Amino acid sequence: MRLAMDAMGGDHAPKEIVLGAMDAISQIEGLHITLIGDEAKIKTHLTTNRNIDIIHTDEMITSEDEPVRAVRRKKNASIVLTAKEVKEGRADACISAGNTGALMSAGLFVVGRIPGIDRPALSPTLPTIDGKGFLLLDVGANTDAKPDHLLQYAVMGSIYTEKVRSIENPKVGLLNVGTEEGKGNDLTKKTYALLQDAPVNFIGNVEARDILNGVADVVVTDGFSGNIALKTIEGTAMTMFSMLKETFMSSTKTKIAAGMVKNDLKGLQSKLDYSEYGGAGLFGLAAPVIKAHGSSNKRAVFSAIKQACHMVDHHVTDTIKETIEKNELEKEGTE
Amino acid sequence: MRLAMDAMGGDHAPKEIVLGAMDAISQIEGLHITLIGDEAKIKTHLTTNRNIDIIHTDEMITSEDEPVRAVRRKKNASIVLTAKEVKEGRADACISAGNTGALMSAGLFVVGRIPGIDRPALSPTLPTIDGKGFLLLDVGANTDAKPDHLLQYAVMGSIYTEKVRSIENPKVGLLNVGTEEGKGNDLTKKTYALLQDAPVNFIGNVEARDILNGVADVVVTDGFSGNIALKTIEGTAMTMFSMLKETFMSSTKTKIAAGMVKNDLKGLQSKLDYSEYGGAGLFGLAAPVIKAHGSSNKRAVFSAIKQACHMVDHHVTDTIKETIEKNELEKEGTE
Repeated sequence: MRLAMDAMGGDHAPKEIVLGAMDAISQIEGLHITLIGDEAKIKTHLTTNRNIDIIHTDEMITSEDEPVRAVRRKKNASIVLTAKEVKEGRADACISAGNTGALMSAGLFVVGRIPGIDRPALSPTLPTIDGKGFLLLDVGANTDAKPDHLLQYAVMGSIYTEKVRSIENPKVGLLNVGTEEGKGNDLTKKTYALLQDAPVNFIGNVEARDILNGVADVVVTDGFSGNIALKTIEGTAMTMFSMLKETFMSSTKTKIAAGMVKNDLKGLQSKLDYSEYGGAGLFGLAAPVIKAHGSSNKRAVFSAIKQACHMVDHHVTDTIKETIEKNELEKEGTE
Repeated sequence: MRLAMDAMGGDHAPKEIVLGAMDAISQIEGLHITLIGDEAKIKTHLTTNRNIDIIHTDEMITSEDEPVRAVRRKKNASIVLTAKEVKEGRADACISAGNTGALMSAGLFVVGRIPGIDRPALSPTLPTIDGKGFLLLDVGANTDAKPDHLLQYAVMGSIYTEKVRSIENPKVGLLNVGTEEGKGNDLTKKTYALLQDAPVNFIGNVEARDILNGVADVVVTDGFSGNIALKTIEGTAMTMFSMLKETFMSSTKTKIAAGMVKNDLKGLQSKLDYSEYGGAGLFGLAAPVIKAHGSSNKRAVFSAIKQACHMVDHHVTDTIKETIEKNELEKEGTE
């Protein structure tokens, strides 16, 4: 198993990327990692070179760069060279914690799509109360989605969840404004009809207020709404933690109580921390491409590496390809 | 000032509706309320009839009814007769805590629209950390919105916020997947251009993760995304409170701590309780129509009544009408 990693992307790069990579190498047998970025900076943190090599480049894409243009112009940017390792068969999968738009562009233009998939979907796994988590896709790769795209998301999400998360016959829900059939906008109404005949365990519409309760294992939506849902979860959780902190700091009594539950509350916070579930997969590309969270520490980087390895080991890309092909063939056969 | 109220809508109707109405009558001078519903049931809770009268009806629309059909068929449903009081000039505004879809239908078909407004918007005020709150519209009246609709929401939301919430020159933001100009889907890109020339204080795109921080006083979005955002806030807050409760109940030590901060945490919960800010206005109709939360207690009912009174007192409907007319005239003048 060979992974390519953008060593320069993310708030704590290259340090946490390098540390996470070394942890993975020491724990995952047969793993080889190529780190792409500033060799001198990478070497500051590298204490071993067993199964790790470096491809040096000075160029990088920052969060200020316009993604599509940057990927086209900065041919030697670390994120572009990372994708190229996959494209040219020297790596089985790749990971970056950098600019999401740039990784999507590099994924599309360099790695390329699975035949039959129109648009890749950015797909994070989010926490649920029971700790099982659910996959939400798309959260922003494709903001003007069509019903066919959502159908493809359902198929890809279902395969990923079954293979990598080991959830049998995963429940697939369509994010909507109400649970009844016939609810929603033009897109969800048309998608509902398609999903009823799709090779997935479609459970119908699900509402945003129920997704953290684990109502579905896979929640399908367009990139605009998915992005709103994801960022609303983040914003509401942040707001509540900050209000909670304020409440606990408001008097001597509350400060004493805070001291007593400090560790328990930290547990609560980590329950909501979705970097525990790995990065967000960019599903629909010709190889596994993982977007690790921008604020990833070495633990989150390690999770993303494990996730990429699982995707390769369980042949997620090939299974998506075969399922799409098979269903296209069947469609043609019945016409 | 005369209000018409659906006494039968909501989880705690008619009791909390009647109690809230009596509280309002005792505190707001010159207010007269007509309660519409089952007279015998209403009278069980009514301890005064000063400035309150009743229109009796046996018929009502439940949450199981299909809204549009129900409003057309159940001509004597309490929600329909409530809207009729406004339509026929016997009330200045109306309120219901019942079926949201039915109130929207009654609003559209019975009360009617302001000329120049294509679609009404369901517009709740949501909490922010600083306690100031922000208006979110639309949250589901119109799930397939066009850029023109969002422009109208911006104008209506801005007028309401200035007049009723006394926020001068309110900041209007467009809910989007990123803050930069040019971000988003086709709808938000086109809306952005329109809002730049609109008679509102447009501050650009806002992200879902910042809205509870009070980044804007008015957040404009299509009904589908708005509904997702609203229900994600509700779901995340509920999830966190339930996790918090679990954390506090996990050991003797945490139980003791919980007892110490119980009242403070209740304060936190009420900070996030948006019924404190009144109901959701259905903006764009020919008179103020307020949807009180389904779980409204008498306090929330009272808030909704105050809100309706403010909307009437400050001529919100007329101001919207004049602003739309003026801007349409200007448009014609420049063509």
